[in-house]
Amino acid sequence: MNGLMLHKELLISSLIVHADRHHGDREIVSRRVEGDIHRYTFRDCHRRARQMANALTRLGVKVSDRVGTLAWNGYRHMELYYAISGMGAVMHTINPRLHADQIVYITEHAEDHYVFFDLTFLPLVEAIASRCTTVKAFIAMTDRSHMPQDCGIANLLCYEDLIEGNSADYAWPTFDEETACTLCYTSGTTGNPKGVLYSHRSSLLHTYAAALPDALNSSARDVILPVVPMFHVNAWGLPYIACMVGAKLVFPGPGLDGKSLYDLLESEQVTLSTGVPTIWQGLLTHLEQNGLRLSSMRRTIVGGAACPPVMLRKFQEGYGVDVLHAWGMTELSPIGTVAALKPRHQEMRTEDRYAVQSKQGRAVFGIDMKIVDAEGHELPWDGLTAGDLLVRGPWVVHSYFRNEGGSPLKIDGEAHGWFPTGDVATIDADGFMQITDRSKDVIKSGGEWISSIEIENIASAHPALASATCIAAKHPKWDERPLLLAVKKPEAQVTEAELLAFLEGKIAKWWTPDAVVFIDELPLGATGKVLKNRLRERFQDYLLPSRAESPT
Amino acid sequence: MNGLMLHKELLISSLIVHADRHHGDREIVSRRVEGDIHRYTFRDCHRRARQMANALTRLGVKVSDRVGTLAWNGYRHMELYYAISGMGAVMHTINPRLHADQIVYITEHAEDHYVFFDLTFLPLVEAIASRCTTVKAFIAMTDRSHMPQDCGIANLLCYEDLIEGNSADYAWPTFDEETACTLCYTSGTTGNPKGVLYSHRSSLLHTYAAALPDALNSSARDVILPVVPMFHVNAWGLPYIACMVGAKLVFPGPGLDGKSLYDLLESEQVTLSTGVPTIWQGLLTHLEQNGLRLSSMRRTIVGGAACPPVMLRKFQEGYGVDVLHAWGMTELSPIGTVAALKPRHQEMRTEDRYAVQSKQGRAVFGIDMKIVDAEGHELPWDGLTAGDLLVRGPWVVHSYFRNEGGSPLKIDGEAHGWFPTGDVATIDADGFMQITDRSKDVIKSGGEWISSIEIENIASAHPALASATCIAAKHPKWDERPLLLAVKKPEAQVTEAELLAFLEGKIAKWWTPDAVVFIDELPLGATGKVLKNRLRERFQDYLLPSRAESPT
Repeated sequence: MNGLMLHKELLISSLIVHADRHHGDREIVSRRVEGDIHRYTFRDCHRRARQMANALTRLGVKVSDRVGTLAWNGYRHMELYYAISGMGAVMHTINPRLHADQIVYITEHAEDHYVFFDLTFLPLVEAIASRCTTVKAFIAMTDRSHMPQDCGIANLLCYEDLIEGNSADYAWPTFDEETACTLCYTSGTTGNPKGVLYSHRSSLLHTYAAALPDALNSSARDVILPVVPMFHVNAWGLPYIACMVGAKLVFPGPGLDGKSLYDLLESEQVTLSTGVPTIWQGLLTHLEQNGLRLSSMRRTIVGGAACPPVMLRKFQEGYGVDVLHAWGMTELSPIGTVAALKPRHQEMRTEDRYAVQSKQGRAVFGIDMKIVDAEGHELPWDGLTAGDLLVRGPWVVHSYFRNEGGSPLKIDGEAHGWFPTGDVATIDADGFMQITDRSKDVIKSGGEWISSIEIENIASAHPALASATCIAAKHPKWDERPLLLAVKKPEAQVTEAELLAFLEGKIAKWWTPDAVVFIDELPLGATGKVLKNRLRERFQDYLLPSRAESPT
Repeated sequence: MNGLMLHKELLISSLIVHADRHHGDREIVSRRVEGDIHRYTFRDCHRRARQMANALTRLGVKVSDRVGTLAWNGYRHMELYYAISGMGAVMHTINPRLHADQIVYITEHAEDHYVFFDLTFLPLVEAIASRCTTVKAFIAMTDRSHMPQDCGIANLLCYEDLIEGNSADYAWPTFDEETACTLCYTSGTTGNPKGVLYSHRSSLLHTYAAALPDALNSSARDVILPVVPMFHVNAWGLPYIACMVGAKLVFPGPGLDGKSLYDLLESEQVTLSTGVPTIWQGLLTHLEQNGLRLSSMRRTIVGGAACPPVMLRKFQEGYGVDVLHAWGMTELSPIGTVAALKPRHQEMRTEDRYAVQSKQGRAVFGIDMKIVDAEGHELPWDGLTAGDLLVRGPWVVHSYFRNEGGSPLKIDGEAHGWFPTGDVATIDADGFMQITDRSKDVIKSGGEWISSIEIENIASAHPALASATCIAAKHPKWDERPLLLAVKKPEAQVTEAELLAFLEGKIAKWWTPDAVVFIDELPLGATGKVLKNRLRERFQDYLLPSRAESPT
């Protein structure tokens, strides 16, 4: 027997409708590619999204057609979020930092009918346009006066022309909430990129969960600056969350350096921001070098990669900004866990509390997680035992677009129906998960596992280092041994012996890296993550054979 | 084309599973009917709920069978919330304050297979047991040593015997999220009670929305005391919310007087509580008479009836407790709106801010609302124009159980598909809804509407009054005119002329009541609301014919 409640489909369009009706005069402020600051309201955004929906309809875009974007965080991108998904088409956000060949691959694989792009990416679009066989036109996200001339793109349209040429008289259609709304490719380090196809239902449920007090904790009194890009897992859902709760949005556009971010944080009185550690390092450096304070920001959510404890401490003690460590994946829409403290954590000594905050956190409601051994048996939540992390829930992928790579969930036994994250983690009695490594990054020494992340987190705290990473290098006796790769701060000096001494007592003795190599910089991927596979390729033989020693 | 995300049914059982895994040691503290304080954890609750699910299965309870409860807020009631709904049956919470005949009617109408009851209600159950033809057994929510003797209930079972006699080895089943989970009858003032049948889906979506920062704002750091009863619209969803976020729960049992509540609020360090104004008045009186403070409570949600502005001011200025005004209905699961302030409200002068806080508030995401005129045309959100309030959303009823009264949504024209709340309201430009009256309570004087609520709110603030209500009385010239019914505080003195002078300048002159009648007490319904229909019956002719005067 069914309940007797209204069945209302969970649809993306309901978010912008709610924002218009309940928070119509709330601002969206954007640093534009054109260089200036643009500001308007949710009501304006909704009107222009409806105009764009009419424009797309006239361009022949139909339900489930893919429409690509190559764009920064900005109001026009926000309009596309609602225009494309709202009309029932699929917004395909493309990471512009990928190699041109990969972008062509992705666009062809997704069969994008149109691609919108910020002017920053004109050279990129010029280079790939003729190779994107499914794309009927490229649309420059600018006005007539800024349109590129003689650019050699056969079918080029102007964003503002499309808006101005169409009425705002558009009624968002109703359809099944399982309908696809957005598509985002994971930039895997091996194999072809794989597309994750979100549904309206999965996105709405994710938005509810992500806005909760113990997740991103967003209200109508917040001013949110998403540094995490809208081209990567929907900026952690913030363009949706802001509409759900009526928070003011501040979009940084291409200005992701410390100074540009600081200026916006202050001028717009941002209360909440989100980003990956590499971006926050830039902000912290700018603050330190110029002796600046943060007058309004009270919380920052750090994710995308493990947040070094030293950064957590700097934000909290130096700037009065609460740091929430979060963890997610493209395959999780992306939010899986947030390290929101429990009452007993709040009573802890500072050091112990930081140790808890450094974990990836506990599952937001909707996500189930467990850790398993090699046979798929569940492991205890004791904070010590590490195993492969599996998740499931209504915003977790069940297969990739066009079944690329087969279903990741078809594992045997107990793990069937669970998504294998590729992370190795512990979970403590409070349900706080801590990633000890990526499955592929873990260092397997003499049959035991060494956490590369733990070593590099500790090493990164050395005052002379700008950054550090730890990788597995081949070893004749122990199969693999840790190798520490370190980047010094400008002018700073430190020796291998000093670094190893710095680690002493902070990690098990047999975890001590066999060697330290100083390099100029760490290679970063398109989303700011260290490309460890590239480093492994370069340094895999570093400990062979002359440097090989007993690790104990 | 559908998205490629896992479809996970939204089920009540997932809440207690999450609470066990992530907040297993969080406490649930209950004042028992037996007189003592009971405390255990979410993990204990989950174990006993599984034992009860096994017990119910052995008693022959099947999917969608109704199981009734006549119980206070307590841990055993909480176990039933999860045992009954979790196994796929329908938990039917019965309001024990209803007349015995109504309870028999409801039990028969729902076709309850079993009815659980707190010992408080033994006399009630004894009186009705033989008339409840579908009930196979009544189960006393107590242990063997407290079981009633020779009570004349033919089939009487003992709660703790059922728990102890069954294993905790029970796997919650998976089924369609549209399946019914709970049933709650509205205690209408006219006609038979009508059942609202919630689904697992509607309840889960309501839980997400209700826990948001701008709704009940609940986190793992909260200690929640639900004064609103679990027998009435699921205590506003708090038994679900607490599991979703890991908040400690404090159940007051039958102790709803000011002293009993105060003792629990302090001893358990409650941070958040919810209740109707009549209950809060009892607490405030206790605080005032004994010169007490509230050391931990920071927020209270007031709903169920309009909160008098004077109460709002007392909580905030006298006790440092933020008051959130909320509005809902049984037909809305129940939460529709919460008066969570926007940034511009926070900058207002105190008086203006109180005026905003006194409104019922803005819709939580998921609820659409509008006000319409007699022809169903939407009215402007100007804060002045009043109209019939309509709502829709995934936790709004579409028809009553067994189609009692026909579908309330089958209205003609623009209002089709919307639920008519029976309230008359204004909505301002910020989306803050304010109920000016119940459709049936509004005073129609000379073709214009007078808000009975506004008049009684102002009158209630008079220091000599304990309470006041305003009703329509028949009038030979104007059809209806306002009549103010006032209850004096013990020992206090005030005259009709003084009360009318107190209203002067605070309401339009033509709204001034034609007369004031002092009475000993206001008749209250089972949920603490003033029974205005009873007062109207008693006083409808009060202004006829000798007292009739021109209202100018």
